[in-house]
Amino acid sequence: MRLLPACFLIAAGFAQAQAPVASSPIAETAIATAKQLRDSALAGSGAYAITESLTTEVGARMAGSEADARAVRWAEAKFKALGFDRVTLEPVTIPVWRRGTESAAVTSPAPQKLSLLALGWSSGTPKGGIEAEVVRFENIDALKAAPDAAVQGRIVFVSQKMTRRRDGGGYGTAVGVRAQAAEIGGRKGAVAALIRSIGTDNDRFPHTGGGVWFGQIALDAELRKRAITLSDGSLIATTLVPAAALSNPDADQLDRLVALGQPVRIKLELDVGYVGEYHGHNVIGDLIGRERPEEIVLIGGHLDSWDPGTGAIDDAAGIAITMAAGAAIAKLPERPRRTLRVVAFADEEQGLFGGYAYAKAHPDAARTHVAIAESDFGAGLIYRFDSNVAADALPTVNAIGQVLYPLDIERGGNDARVGSDIGPIHKLGVPAFALSQDGIDYFDYHHTANDTLDKVDAKKLDQNVAAYVAFAYLAAEAEHKIEAPKKP
Amino acid sequence: MRLLPACFLIAAGFAQAQAPVASSPIAETAIATAKQLRDSALAGSGAYAITESLTTEVGARMAGSEADARAVRWAEAKFKALGFDRVTLEPVTIPVWRRGTESAAVTSPAPQKLSLLALGWSSGTPKGGIEAEVVRFENIDALKAAPDAAVQGRIVFVSQKMTRRRDGGGYGTAVGVRAQAAEIGGRKGAVAALIRSIGTDNDRFPHTGGGVWFGQIALDAELRKRAITLSDGSLIATTLVPAAALSNPDADQLDRLVALGQPVRIKLELDVGYVGEYHGHNVIGDLIGRERPEEIVLIGGHLDSWDPGTGAIDDAAGIAITMAAGAAIAKLPERPRRTLRVVAFADEEQGLFGGYAYAKAHPDAARTHVAIAESDFGAGLIYRFDSNVAADALPTVNAIGQVLYPLDIERGGNDARVGSDIGPIHKLGVPAFALSQDGIDYFDYHHTANDTLDKVDAKKLDQNVAAYVAFAYLAAEAEHKIEAPKKP
Repeated sequence: MRLLPACFLIAAGFAQAQAPVASSPIAETAIATAKQLRDSALAGSGAYAITESLTTEVGARMAGSEADARAVRWAEAKFKALGFDRVTLEPVTIPVWRRGTESAAVTSPAPQKLSLLALGWSSGTPKGGIEAEVVRFENIDALKAAPDAAVQGRIVFVSQKMTRRRDGGGYGTAVGVRAQAAEIGGRKGAVAALIRSIGTDNDRFPHTGGGVWFGQIALDAELRKRAITLSDGSLIATTLVPAAALSNPDADQLDRLVALGQPVRIKLELDVGYVGEYHGHNVIGDLIGRERPEEIVLIGGHLDSWDPGTGAIDDAAGIAITMAAGAAIAKLPERPRRTLRVVAFADEEQGLFGGYAYAKAHPDAARTHVAIAESDFGAGLIYRFDSNVAADALPTVNAIGQVLYPLDIERGGNDARVGSDIGPIHKLGVPAFALSQDGIDYFDYHHTANDTLDKVDAKKLDQNVAAYVAFAYLAAEAEHKIEAPKKP
Repeated sequence: MRLLPACFLIAAGFAQAQAPVASSPIAETAIATAKQLRDSALAGSGAYAITESLTTEVGARMAGSEADARAVRWAEAKFKALGFDRVTLEPVTIPVWRRGTESAAVTSPAPQKLSLLALGWSSGTPKGGIEAEVVRFENIDALKAAPDAAVQGRIVFVSQKMTRRRDGGGYGTAVGVRAQAAEIGGRKGAVAALIRSIGTDNDRFPHTGGGVWFGQIALDAELRKRAITLSDGSLIATTLVPAAALSNPDADQLDRLVALGQPVRIKLELDVGYVGEYHGHNVIGDLIGRERPEEIVLIGGHLDSWDPGTGAIDDAAGIAITMAAGAAIAKLPERPRRTLRVVAFADEEQGLFGGYAYAKAHPDAARTHVAIAESDFGAGLIYRFDSNVAADALPTVNAIGQVLYPLDIERGGNDARVGSDIGPIHKLGVPAFALSQDGIDYFDYHHTANDTLDKVDAKKLDQNVAAYVAFAYLAAEAEHKIEAPKKP
């Protein structure tokens, strides 16, 4: 192969993994340790056992539930057992949305039950439910374009399908349907909104997920009018009209029933809604840096899950991968130069409350945090390593990339998209990383009852830990502090 | 290849499909018509549309429900629309078991909901449910061997796993667990019985199914004591203690919770039970034979389904395959020599009530029925053709086998195991056939909410129809009446 000048590689933000590096920006001894950590994790990381423990001993752990508190105690105990130096519970104000009973049935022309789940933050129906004719839309744009008269007094049904992609690329588009159907339909006079599940499977599992974008509240006068202000100042809202997701087979069935040409009526009863505040916690495990303890490398996942499954791929796996990476570093004879922090974030699912609370509690993050990465895309193999750092830091990052390359992880670009919980702190100006997992089947299970431990492969988790442990160790041990990109 | 003498082939009950047949026992013109019917069905049989119609316009259709009556009307109308000469509703006395609400949760050591379905004929729990410690058994033999003291006052949990086999061979063994757990556990003093679902999937769908073998009632004094006698004299019973199936992931979870070593307690509430009699119907479509109308070739499936899914593979597919086969023959310029009958049997799932009623209504079946075959093993490709006929009939049957062979259907033996609904009539001494389907994934969906239309492949249905239409036409047109095996 032709060797390119090093300056070109840096400018392009790509590591030429097979190219010999004349002088590494990371000490040879550190590289050797990282390789040992990597290979040892690959041979057996313990991450599966952690995933099993959380999903079995806690199970489903919806933010604000009794299981949320048990999950926090579990994380605290697990960090201690794994040899972390310091475990901190960081308060998070959590609004509690309760899922009671849910039922739906076609009442005519062919009476039959439908399998659905209320979307998170759905408002409830009146007791006894509502019954109305269905009006179907192929996608959210068709609903937007519909005249009010076509929608008034009806249940809107948006049957938009999600695309299967390794990088989850279909989610961004489809998830807009979830957050908008009830708002757009409700404003046109609909009495409820049903959507086709945001999922790529054809199993009869509805996929739940947040039905409101809280980020929109500040931008939208109508949303603002009905917003609820939490004690920490956060704004939330329930959906304008009750909102639920049908499983893909049920959505297909409703498509077919509508296609028969007779009016299709549905009875829907959702006993769900906002019930008040809960005081939860981010759980933080630290390995305190031996030279620069104030400089933090942060990895983590989210501790909460949706309620139908046991949150194995979303996100016990991420918790386990990053805890196991920290545990491996904890066993080294000495701590890395900087602090390694593993965060089990509270309440990601219902609005990133843990991530926002973390950013609020660490306003100086741009100075104190040198690298952040989150594992929250299931339990598939990592195939790419992207960064979002200053150009000066690229030699260090590329050297890390070379240690990951034997794991079949390609060096991506320097425009990493970061995990959701670390989004708020990333915005403060913190160097960020993405270790991208193969999510080709992630949305088969995501937010369903079928997100259970059996969907997790121990060997794949080991590869994830191998990547995280090498990455985190090297970021914490590197000679030069990694800096964020200069603002343009 | 080496050609074997024809007498050897006949004696062995095997057709050597590639071997030239000197003189066919079926007229060449009939063979030619059968081949045309076969190839035309393969190119597009209409069976998928029938499956879609039944699963969409009726949906789930549990015996004795409102949907049962709708299914009967549907079948009657469909037979007429497909050109059958005569449609008969044959009364069937159906005992109605109602599934109300069901819930279960681990209450300690790690509170969490469990996903389960009551088994058919389960007795209910008292209102408010029951709560007890779980005692786990690896298989039904371990439960049988347990001392009463280990079981008394507890919920028995039998975690026996089912084997995946193309021919469904794992079902026979596993299904014994379903019919026995509550009886054996209850007699030892258990308060309820949970089983691992009889299913090969790892999706979080429980598999329902009958929890009592009604055939045992006559043989078992204790069962007889609590039996209910229906107006037609049939004996039924509910389970001795409440009985339900956990999904495979839930059974795995319970295995893990038990393995933690602390007592595991479960709260179970099942509002289910026997509610009375219903008067349902087998629906019979006939193409009346042009020469020997009193001689009947019978094919069919069962019209009812369990309630969680829409009964697409179990057994809308079988109904559709056999209806479509009949419809193709109905379009021929003349009727075959004998009568072709397609039966949509009532209430297979809850105790073969339709099949028994048919046998009772046709006590002369050994004289009048010349060939019977049922399609009730999903929507997979047919790979084998077995018979159970007199030795004299083997030349005719082997000639039929040769017409099926190009469909990648091998000629099996002369000891066919027959479908469940035709079991009772087979016992009267009727020649029977099995067109065996590939059921490698059948028990992934069987008796679950996930048995929906999307699991059915139209092309595979066409191959099934191609086989049934050729078989049924040739059996109805053959020179010689097919006779049953001589009794030994």
